[in-house]
Amino acid sequence: MAPLQDDKAAEVTEVSIPKRPISTVVFIIAMQKEASPLVEKFQLTQESNSVFPNGVPWVRYSGKYKDLNINIVCPGKDVVLGVDSVGTVSASLITYASIQALQPDLVINAGTAGGFKAKGACIGDVYLASDVAFHDRRIPIPVFDLYGVGTRQACSTPNLAKELNLKIGKLSTGDSLDMCPQDETAIVANDATVKDMEGAAIAYVADLLKTPVIFLKAVTDIVDGNKPTSEEFLENLVAVTAALDRAATQVVDYINGKNLSEL
Amino acid sequence: MAPLQDDKAAEVTEVSIPKRPISTVVFIIAMQKEASPLVEKFQLTQESNSVFPNGVPWVRYSGKYKDLNINIVCPGKDVVLGVDSVGTVSASLITYASIQALQPDLVINAGTAGGFKAKGACIGDVYLASDVAFHDRRIPIPVFDLYGVGTRQACSTPNLAKELNLKIGKLSTGDSLDMCPQDETAIVANDATVKDMEGAAIAYVADLLKTPVIFLKAVTDIVDGNKPTSEEFLENLVAVTAALDRAATQVVDYINGKNLSEL
Repeated sequence: MAPLQDDKAAEVTEVSIPKRPISTVVFIIAMQKEASPLVEKFQLTQESNSVFPNGVPWVRYSGKYKDLNINIVCPGKDVVLGVDSVGTVSASLITYASIQALQPDLVINAGTAGGFKAKGACIGDVYLASDVAFHDRRIPIPVFDLYGVGTRQACSTPNLAKELNLKIGKLSTGDSLDMCPQDETAIVANDATVKDMEGAAIAYVADLLKTPVIFLKAVTDIVDGNKPTSEEFLENLVAVTAALDRAATQVVDYINGKNLSEL
Repeated sequence: MAPLQDDKAAEVTEVSIPKRPISTVVFIIAMQKEASPLVEKFQLTQESNSVFPNGVPWVRYSGKYKDLNINIVCPGKDVVLGVDSVGTVSASLITYASIQALQPDLVINAGTAGGFKAKGACIGDVYLASDVAFHDRRIPIPVFDLYGVGTRQACSTPNLAKELNLKIGKLSTGDSLDMCPQDETAIVANDATVKDMEGAAIAYVADLLKTPVIFLKAVTDIVDGNKPTSEEFLENLVAVTAALDRAATQVVDYINGKNLSEL
């Protein structure tokens, strides 16, 4: 029997923007240390009755803050190695599972990032990403090359950016903390100001499931500086996380009571 | 309120091996051209009433073949670009969604791969992977480095390998079709004979959900040879896919009526 023709392309619709105040927000945060201050700030509690499958290390904190249902979802600790499950694979899975289970009005990916001083980034800056793309998916076949780069725009939030005086820049994502020459070439081609390990994968899943997403990225290390990324990252993680959490709180306060189209 | 302590690590159990014949098999196949001959061979039909969310391009073919419920799941065509949704992010998502929806006894990731002649690989060889790992997730922080590499063993199938006379080798996964020097160093460290763009991500998800997985990889191009990978890949795709499909059919015929522990 011949398979049916795939006519799914015809079904694709735009990201839907409901004309009512934002009600449910899901933060996707890769590292526990990045999430903990926000969990406290919003007085969230860890859900013991998980919406996720048995055995996965994914952690969800939730609670009511002002008029919003806030969820913070982390990929949790690798069950064998005990380190945070960073990177695109875990981020994709928790974004998918969270959107399916919680049907949020908005996904916010908040986290630390490397910044490029050549593009104006300084340690402690918090960026709102305008666009995201991958820099480590090189597929040198026509059209597949574009698929690999996977550029996507974040949900447009001009009022939020202006009101909170956030820096705007492009975000480039790869699964390595360091940057090899091929990554660098791709990052330059992506015109990126900040570099992380999850954003473009989260954008891909959010786009697939027609869910608006924004990206808050706080700079822990200068990629085009003198210090090794891993050293600088660990040195600044706690202080920069505080800056990230201040910005995330401001974003949530601003969002409260507004429609997506007002952001 | 302080978050509850995460005690999930204590709940981790081994991959469960049921003591009854394998009933449901899910093939994860990245490219339509790799899947189509198997869909015909097993006389599967495309499911129009999807177990997947609306709007995703994922395609499932299913049917009964001998005593087995066979499913072939492909990530489908990118909804904007129209090319197969290759790579680790899509593969992770469809593996997760398929295991959740279909609860298979066994996942089989079948696909084409690059081979290393220095490790004995030739065009058209079909390998059964003993181990899988990533080669493009460099995180130079202790323990995170091991998480990045993410080595996992395939489900042990010594009888199947011997009976079908399949070559055995280690598989290394990355999101690029080409190989930069840093990838090469990691591939050598992974002791890999074959290189693909999905395997280690599928292994990660299967492990997370305690589902046995095996990997069948047919060599379309010699990575350490003279021809550019992309050219050689496209040249050999159809012929090598035929070899892959013969091997996959032999595997299914061998599996039919057996317990996992007999493989």
